[in-house]
Amino acid sequence: MTDWFHWINLAGVAVCAVSGTLMAYQKRMDGFGVVVLASVTAIGGGTLRDIVLDIPVFWVQDTDYLYSTLVAALVTIIWLRFSPRFPYHYLLIADAFGLALFNVVGMEKALIHDAPMVVAIAMGTITGVFGGLLRDVICREIPLVLNGELYAITCIIGGVAYAIARHYGFESQWCVIISLATTVLMRLGALRWHWQLPVFRIE
Amino acid sequence: MTDWFHWINLAGVAVCAVSGTLMAYQKRMDGFGVVVLASVTAIGGGTLRDIVLDIPVFWVQDTDYLYSTLVAALVTIIWLRFSPRFPYHYLLIADAFGLALFNVVGMEKALIHDAPMVVAIAMGTITGVFGGLLRDVICREIPLVLNGELYAITCIIGGVAYAIARHYGFESQWCVIISLATTVLMRLGALRWHWQLPVFRIE
Amino acid sequence: MTDWFHWINLAGVAVCAVSGTLMAYQKRMDGFGVVVLASVTAIGGGTLRDIVLDIPVFWVQDTDYLYSTLVAALVTIIWLRFSPRFPYHYLLIADAFGLALFNVVGMEKALIHDAPMVVAIAMGTITGVFGGLLRDVICREIPLVLNGELYAITCIIGGVAYAIARHYGFESQWCVIISLATTVLMRLGALRWHWQLPVFRIE
Repeated sequence: MTDWFHWINLAGVAVCAVSGTLMAYQKRMDGFGVVVLASVTAIGGGTLRDIVLDIPVFWVQDTDYLYSTLVAALVTIIWLRFSPRFPYHYLLIADAFGLALFNVVGMEKALIHDAPMVVAIAMGTITGVFGGLLRDVICREIPLVLNGELYAITCIIGGVAYAIARHYGFESQWCVIISLATTVLMRLGALRWHWQLPVFRIE
Repeated sequence: MTDWFHWINLAGVAVCAVSGTLMAYQKRMDGFGVVVLASVTAIGGGTLRDIVLDIPVFWVQDTDYLYSTLVAALVTIIWLRFSPRFPYHYLLIADAFGLALFNVVGMEKALIHDAPMVVAIAMGTITGVFGGLLRDVICREIPLVLNGELYAITCIIGGVAYAIARHYGFESQWCVIISLATTVLMRLGALRWHWQLPVFRIE
Repeated sequence: MTDWFHWINLAGVAVCAVSGTLMAYQKRMDGFGVVVLASVTAIGGGTLRDIVLDIPVFWVQDTDYLYSTLVAALVTIIWLRFSPRFPYHYLLIADAFGLALFNVVGMEKALIHDAPMVVAIAMGTITGVFGGLLRDVICREIPLVLNGELYAITCIIGGVAYAIARHYGFESQWCVIISLATTVLMRLGALRWHWQLPVFRIE
């Protein structure tokens, strides 16, 4: 993968680490709790993806990801000591970009290892949402990704957009850009207009 | 594995997907929550088994399992939109067969890869119950498989039956049939007569 | 690994199995719940470590660990049937030794497979605390390792002690002893004087 890809990927990991640290703050955890929640949120999804694909786990290969997680957690802790207000709004927007990027990274990794397209879409979604799901399970929340606004479904739609672009012969970087744009726009739209996807008719 | 084995296995996955979808319905989840719960319940146990045995994960190899999960979830959703009553009773019986089958599949997979018998029994049990355990943990239930009527213990007994049959020189297909019959009968008996296994004396 | 190492390792697994069984007792679980909680606590951390490092899972290779878990659970069950009082105090001390040992085992395994030092420290911590974390998540507790007295942080400090000793050219067995002593003393100190590590300033 090219160099800018690596840097954006590190940024995505950092954004997720910040969201894990904020959850630890809300739950009044201390010390190790912060490290665990930040790490699980940041690298949990990619770890499961690499294990299921049976390829080397990315943060064992490249320790930059561990350092990125720790630095992001540390900066967030220092920020929160000086100011209990945190720019949640910007975090949600950064998170939308992180989600879209993790989704594409997961798909590309799966396709490089000759996985079928439906498996690649599953891998993109796992990379995008599994870290947040683990974070919520550990904190005894019903995972946010499971009910409420569109979250993971935007990964699936971004993955389908990738598959369609690829099917019509677009080059790889265009597939990536189309998928990223679709996921980010869907997610920002869901945040702005509170889109939901009711499947059950519950009286 | 032979063709009928493949089809029954797909049916087992579908039954578990239905049970995950029903849990999502009870918890009033929507959209992606249904997909996650159905998938986790249907393929979670087999995924852990394949990862621990370090063999290719079954649904990455054969996408039929993913489609089976999605179709089962979709059919259940449509059913529930038209009728809030669901034939839970038949589901429990189907689930007993699914449990027995997953158990035998897990044992066979482990034995093919030269695992010792005690590991094979553990793998059968993991395949049978881990999906349901994950479903309950995600939904913040104390897992049903852990307290209440005999569930996982029937897997272990079915596994021991397999081991005994094998020890006395029965051919492979007979070991499978003996194990299946033992697990299904134990499970249906536990459902009918509310068998329990108290190990603690709690005043 | 040498013979005494193997035996102490089995003892560490047994201690964790006892702690899982005690949790099942407190939660009034029965039958299979005890087996699952004992197993998850005893071998969960090492299983995740081996999967992430992509090496054969230790209890699939050497079934002694499964038997050690089952025997420890059985002995605890029999003890609790005769006397509802359990020597929790001794268990905490045994647990401190188990934690230190799991930590060193995890680091050594990672370093043998050429992992960088920061990954090795992460692996030691995972081996030490992940079993207990899973135990608490399954029982719907907020994991003890995440808030309260110093627990996992002692693993990290023991890991850093190992790294420093190695950096200054100590031989492998001395690195092990220094790391073990650091982790055990930190943990016993945390238990005795209720050390904590507040990172957030929460009003």
